[in-house]
Amino acid sequence: MKSYQNQSKAALKKEITKLYKARDAYKKKHLNLNMTRGKPAPAQLDLCLGINKVLIKKEDYISKDKIDCRNYGDMTGIYECKKLLGDMCGAKPEQVIVAGNSSLRIMYDVIAHGMMKGVCGNKPFMKQGKIKWLCVVPGYDRHFSILEYLGIEMINVDLRKDGPDMDTVEKLVKKDPTIKGIWCVPQYANPSGTSYGPKAVKRLASLKPAAKDFRIYWDNAYAVHHLYPNKQDRVLNILDEAKKAHNEDIVYVFASTSKISFAGAGVACVACSENNKKDLIANFNMETVGFDKVNQIRHVRYFKDINGIKAHMKKHANIMRPKFEMVLSVLDKEIGDLKIAQYTRPYGGYFVSLNTLPGCATRVHALCKEMGVSLTPAGAAYPYHKDPKDSHLRIAPSFPTVNEIKDATKILALAIKIATIEQKLKINGRN
Amino acid sequence: MKSYQNQSKAALKKEITKLYKARDAYKKKHLNLNMTRGKPAPAQLDLCLGINKVLIKKEDYISKDKIDCRNYGDMTGIYECKKLLGDMCGAKPEQVIVAGNSSLRIMYDVIAHGMMKGVCGNKPFMKQGKIKWLCVVPGYDRHFSILEYLGIEMINVDLRKDGPDMDTVEKLVKKDPTIKGIWCVPQYANPSGTSYGPKAVKRLASLKPAAKDFRIYWDNAYAVHHLYPNKQDRVLNILDEAKKAHNEDIVYVFASTSKISFAGAGVACVACSENNKKDLIANFNMETVGFDKVNQIRHVRYFKDINGIKAHMKKHANIMRPKFEMVLSVLDKEIGDLKIAQYTRPYGGYFVSLNTLPGCATRVHALCKEMGVSLTPAGAAYPYHKDPKDSHLRIAPSFPTVNEIKDATKILALAIKIATIEQKLKINGRN
Repeated sequence: MKSYQNQSKAALKKEITKLYKARDAYKKKHLNLNMTRGKPAPAQLDLCLGINKVLIKKEDYISKDKIDCRNYGDMTGIYECKKLLGDMCGAKPEQVIVAGNSSLRIMYDVIAHGMMKGVCGNKPFMKQGKIKWLCVVPGYDRHFSILEYLGIEMINVDLRKDGPDMDTVEKLVKKDPTIKGIWCVPQYANPSGTSYGPKAVKRLASLKPAAKDFRIYWDNAYAVHHLYPNKQDRVLNILDEAKKAHNEDIVYVFASTSKISFAGAGVACVACSENNKKDLIANFNMETVGFDKVNQIRHVRYFKDINGIKAHMKKHANIMRPKFEMVLSVLDKEIGDLKIAQYTRPYGGYFVSLNTLPGCATRVHALCKEMGVSLTPAGAAYPYHKDPKDSHLRIAPSFPTVNEIKDATKILALAIKIATIEQKLKINGRN
Repeated sequence: MKSYQNQSKAALKKEITKLYKARDAYKKKHLNLNMTRGKPAPAQLDLCLGINKVLIKKEDYISKDKIDCRNYGDMTGIYECKKLLGDMCGAKPEQVIVAGNSSLRIMYDVIAHGMMKGVCGNKPFMKQGKIKWLCVVPGYDRHFSILEYLGIEMINVDLRKDGPDMDTVEKLVKKDPTIKGIWCVPQYANPSGTSYGPKAVKRLASLKPAAKDFRIYWDNAYAVHHLYPNKQDRVLNILDEAKKAHNEDIVYVFASTSKISFAGAGVACVACSENNKKDLIANFNMETVGFDKVNQIRHVRYFKDINGIKAHMKKHANIMRPKFEMVLSVLDKEIGDLKIAQYTRPYGGYFVSLNTLPGCATRVHALCKEMGVSLTPAGAAYPYHKDPKDSHLRIAPSFPTVNEIKDATKILALAIKIATIEQKLKINGRN
């Protein structure tokens, strides 16, 4: 296949006529393929049916330190669940608060606490006038939605191959005391699959922000979500690095088992310094008499320890890997040589990031829709849904079957070709 | 036994010497009896072990409308769980959002939403300057803690035999637009066990507050928590009454199964009008990808329907009833004739309210502590922990055994006697 760049207008016109025919053929098929969200597939969920067979006798509900998980209390969670989640996200049990079913909700809650009460005794965000946040882009749409909803101004920071553009991060947080946070997904980042290198983690852990109430919001969502047994990214432990830098209060770490046990029915945690923990517990104590400890002990009885989780995640990988490989092999075959898109080849996580030529992503999304393939809207991975280059698309291959992914990715490739040639020929994209 | 009122100083001095001896004897026993919190007893929790044996095959996780409870999504919950909780708290399934494990957390969350974003498009509470709340007293300490934490000014409204002092409520909310809410526990109220009569419910449902963003926060915590098969309070359905009054947006109803299945590991809900629901869902959609639906379907599979819950609560009643009766029989025997305390005789709920003569409650609490009995601190049932009369004590008999309650209540009665005579004799209460 020849690159479109060196082709004449006439050749491109001929090509697009052919491509439109292919599109029209797909339209007649009335397909309904969905690659919008990072949802586990039923086959992954089936792996965990045993988790609801481990609590039988009343002794099964009693934790090692004699806590009856069926009753109120014990705000930070039972020790063995703190250990389980701590081992997963690089925290000591005493740094962990197991706080419900959803790490996103904990993140929201921590920010809401900052809004209404202030972080560690500082003035509430809502009483500080305009505040800002650094958003590593492309990033997780729901992180940005929270900030937009709460009226916090978002500033884009580019994600490079080894982490955020740290020169910019350091410069901004040093000079601007209205910047209160940065969103990071350090391992197999949503949506690029990028993992932060050691330099980036060390520089983040050593940040000296102008704002005392600045924190790194470290969403370690994919800590054990490797695709390959032998090709695995490892990210430095930011809690340890922050301690080394005498900067322990700089970071909140978040994790959950939503993509390990059941989505939305797992256990989630925040891990942080003693100061931060005290501050958060004061808040949690107002909110609730306690989080669901039965679900905590259920997860402990089922997985036993971090090795149990790792073994379980190998089974997930066996289901996920062929899906990622199908996305990549179709893209390689269909557009690999055309220089009309770049895409990531992650070793883990839930997404592939694809960049079209600037100005094409919205059109690709629309073309896919016409052909029966739903993708996350173009721009979704950016604050305010605005991709400055209109080139980014997030591919979520976890939920559909391998065959569906094959079809959907072929359609995506076709859409990229069409959008690229339309742009070159200045076709307005509405024919 | 003679009332203390008609006794001479000399007789009272003689009496208190005897009582101090009894106190000193208790002190030597080093008892450790706890009647502080409304926690279910282990025997109640044992009734529900079956709930973790109902999810076996993958079909068990699929709801009637084909929702896979193991995966993300479906913010308001599965239909059959909305039906189950709706039937419990008097709401139609379409009025219900099943939102996690803790109704207290939902209440906090709804208020936090009001603080940061405003209720139904009104200005955020935090941008309205000082705001206020009506607190029916005595009431639930954690309701008041939330308001104190968020800096909301609390105004006491007396709870009478048939509900809040409605003349005062109506007058205040009509004239003061800074009053944004009222806390109500309408059935078997914490801590008095009082249930609201039909007139109070109708007047509440018809409130015409000056503030558009005023709401009734209706914590229906004890809707099915009867102690007797034949003596049961019934409270009018406030959602229906509000509809009749063309005032549907006036109320949020909250309920949970924490004191039905497992404490802190149940399912909880908010039920409200269509407008309020839309407003809350917009907020929940920012917070989380969804609440724990596996726990929802677990509760549905186990209890099946409201009749299942009612049958289960009869078993709870069989455990709770003798405890309440022990409290009352000891109090009747020890201080029934002395006119030194009044106490409630609830048909349900988790508490007995006791009022000493004015100025004695703090001292009674301290005396109990000396003798090895922990009670909720005096004043806890009032905003800012300040009982204007220093006379109220909350008795929580659910957790201890019947024998422990017998001992603890004897000690309580002794403490009341001592504190009363000390007051009459102007003894400073530190001997």
